[in-house]
Amino acid sequence: MKSYIVFSEEVLNAKAAGQPIVALESTIISHGMPYPQNVETARAVEQIIRDNGAVPATIALIDGQIKIGLSYDELEMFGKSDNVAKVSRRDIGHLLATKQLGATTVAATMICADLAEIRMFVTGGIGGVHRGAETTMDISADLEELAKTDVAVVCAGAKSILDIGLTMEYLETKGVPVIGYETDELPAFYTRKSGFPVNFRADNPEVIADTLAVKWHLGLAGGAVIANPIPEADELDPEMINKIIDEALTEAKEKGIKGKDVTPFMLGKVKDLTDGKSLVANIALVKHNAVVGAKIAVALSNAR
Amino acid sequence: MKSYIVFSEEVLNAKAAGQPIVALESTIISHGMPYPQNVETARAVEQIIRDNGAVPATIALIDGQIKIGLSYDELEMFGKSDNVAKVSRRDIGHLLATKQLGATTVAATMICADLAEIRMFVTGGIGGVHRGAETTMDISADLEELAKTDVAVVCAGAKSILDIGLTMEYLETKGVPVIGYETDELPAFYTRKSGFPVNFRADNPEVIADTLAVKWHLGLAGGAVIANPIPEADELDPEMINKIIDEALTEAKEKGIKGKDVTPFMLGKVKDLTDGKSLVANIALVKHNAVVGAKIAVALSNAR
Amino acid sequence: MKSYIVFSEEVLNAKAAGQPIVALESTIISHGMPYPQNVETARAVEQIIRDNGAVPATIALIDGQIKIGLSYDELEMFGKSDNVAKVSRRDIGHLLATKQLGATTVAATMICADLAEIRMFVTGGIGGVHRGAETTMDISADLEELAKTDVAVVCAGAKSILDIGLTMEYLETKGVPVIGYETDELPAFYTRKSGFPVNFRADNPEVIADTLAVKWHLGLAGGAVIANPIPEADELDPEMINKIIDEALTEAKEKGIKGKDVTPFMLGKVKDLTDGKSLVANIALVKHNAVVGAKIAVALSNAR
Ligand SMILES: [Mn+2]
Ligand SMILES: [Mn+2]
Ligand SMILES: [Mn+2]
Repeated sequence: MKSYIVFSEEVLNAKAAGQPIVALESTIISHGMPYPQNVETARAVEQIIRDNGAVPATIALIDGQIKIGLSYDELEMFGKSDNVAKVSRRDIGHLLATKQLGATTVAATMICADLAEIRMFVTGGIGGVHRGAETTMDISADLEELAKTDVAVVCAGAKSILDIGLTMEYLETKGVPVIGYETDELPAFYTRKSGFPVNFRADNPEVIADTLAVKWHLGLAGGAVIANPIPEADELDPEMINKIIDEALTEAKEKGIKGKDVTPFMLGKVKDLTDGKSLVANIALVKHNAVVGAKIAVALSNAR
Repeated sequence: MKSYIVFSEEVLNAKAAGQPIVALESTIISHGMPYPQNVETARAVEQIIRDNGAVPATIALIDGQIKIGLSYDELEMFGKSDNVAKVSRRDIGHLLATKQLGATTVAATMICADLAEIRMFVTGGIGGVHRGAETTMDISADLEELAKTDVAVVCAGAKSILDIGLTMEYLETKGVPVIGYETDELPAFYTRKSGFPVNFRADNPEVIADTLAVKWHLGLAGGAVIANPIPEADELDPEMINKIIDEALTEAKEKGIKGKDVTPFMLGKVKDLTDGKSLVANIALVKHNAVVGAKIAVALSNAR
Repeated sequence: MKSYIVFSEEVLNAKAAGQPIVALESTIISHGMPYPQNVETARAVEQIIRDNGAVPATIALIDGQIKIGLSYDELEMFGKSDNVAKVSRRDIGHLLATKQLGATTVAATMICADLAEIRMFVTGGIGGVHRGAETTMDISADLEELAKTDVAVVCAGAKSILDIGLTMEYLETKGVPVIGYETDELPAFYTRKSGFPVNFRADNPEVIADTLAVKWHLGLAGGAVIANPIPEADELDPEMINKIIDEALTEAKEKGIKGKDVTPFMLGKVKDLTDGKSLVANIALVKHNAVVGAKIAVALSNAR
């Protein structure tokens, strides 16, 4: 085991007992919601993982260490801090060396989970190819990570502000399986459908676990996208949300917002224009992903 | 050796005796020609490999296993089946876990050959960057595989419906050698010239074997494209074939054909519009590639 | 240790004594300047490395071997030869197998340094995404190498004829850290500013060494760009140089110059139109990079 990696007591015990473990990211805590809602949601998601037979491991960079599982106090401190850097692959070395607080994105959470030998990770949505990336080359590091790091990501699709078609092409080129959980179609984060087919549909956790087990047994490096649609009751109206995203994109362009400023601007706009309904939907889909992710982690633990 | 991998008796004996082995793909059998022509061609190509001093290993996914070398009955069954899935990197885990029949593309054949420690692979043409990929990002997973998997691919160039210039740029960025066998110019599948220079010309199998041996000895991961022009006698008329491809592309655009439907549509069109001459040329070039691939496999076996 | 790799006596002694070593490329010698200026500059840069506490290892392919450190006579011979091939990743196997003289680019120097377990490399500027690459896909193999090979590159930014914004996007997607040495902004080779922020600013060699040590300790593959602005005294006038580059690009387009011919054409034009000032600036920035690279190599040697 590398140094720099520190496990919570709960995760350490789970490892010793061979229990299934599910990784959780921390960007949603530091950059997704205000305190104390962020900490409450994080605790609720962790509890859902436990209720479904697995052990949660929320991951963050604290004081020059990669924390695999946060204690009660650490989560509280982390949720209250406002000087937390977003961490992608390129940032890990520097943030550890300079002992800064870091909130792990999908890419960085995959890396840290892999270092901790955790193979299942639950989040809201993955990054992808940005709209307009044909000319801007703005493509999330999450996709490269999915191509090489052995961690499966349960999500509700790519964030809907992205170009879903181009994201699917990129994943195909990179050999990343996109598995639909009880769906033939890739979900679009706030809504259940995107118009794009998944590679495979799976109707139970066992077949996904078997697929992952074979893949990794053969040494086929990389993760998988397990696309789990937002529950029907929580889905936003597709027409409304698409109209809002189009408006927000136009406004971003007019205001000259670019690069890494686009995502937070877009998410803020979407939240405002939906009267906060987007945040409610976001929480609902993460909780649903936690149920499914825990079940697959249990199945994977039995499969191997 | 991983489980999931099963060798035919012929390949097993060749491995035990340290004989040179050449991998062959199975998509050409299931998706390239009708039965029984497909099986006859596959057997003829296998015999050419033997006649040139190496042992053929046709690769396919059957009943939850990767078959390295098909028996007489397996090839017959495979060639007659019409429920065969095309397998790329992303599909291998799921198709094995669910025990489906799978026909390996270039990418998947490279992976399976590598798992079986076979370093030489003969096919017709590799996938590449699709025309229009500047905006569609439609790029074959074959190129990523060439960048990372240690298998050399003997082919007659990239399929001519692709953008050859962009394919060469992609391979350059990824550090994949493109070696011309008795040619300074990359061939264009049905024709001997494309207008694009190869990286190196080689006029005998030994220099290619030496190049590959040094590359892999140094741990420089990835394959190589060994571009072998279609024999002059079998070449189609360049003007005719380019006109047909342009027409077919226009028709595909008009009909809204996209993504993975483009290649089969294009190949069908080309076959129709050439009165079947494209299929005859395709068989001729694969057989020629088998001669050259077997010779390089023999040379590589001596070089190491 | 692989065969094909031969160390100079100086480098061999440095390795035995555990001294810090800095790799240097040889394309600047063979393709960057005329003899004897090229050899004089190479010797001067080597001496700067020594004066700052490290040992220089100029890398080239000679007579079927990778030379790590050139002797006095080898450097002389290499600097006088005019039949030297430029070596990128794809070329290494073939040039060694056929015993040709090869001048290592950034990508190839990184590979050879890595094979020799040298982690620090000083050059002028890295390759990157070419202007217009949205449609030409002309992207230097240097960027892929930075994504996977564990060697840090001290440079004055990407060559200014490139698209710096797109180069930064590509590096972000690939997870490559871009660290500014005493700068918040990526330098633009001949000038100190590009308008693009670096990922991190570092004001001393130790923090860069610590960042690299943590990154590699964790097994996070790949290099880092350490961007070191040209000294103020040597900087060219930004307005002048940008105007010249734009003119040269227009001329290249008009003359139909494409692909790998663009860079030498552009550099020749820039040299002519600046009355040779660009070459003086180039030498000054490489010498400055040598000072900084040696200091980081010393710090890295202490950090581990
Ligand atoms: Mn981005
Ligand atoms: Mn495609
Ligand atoms: Mn190029």
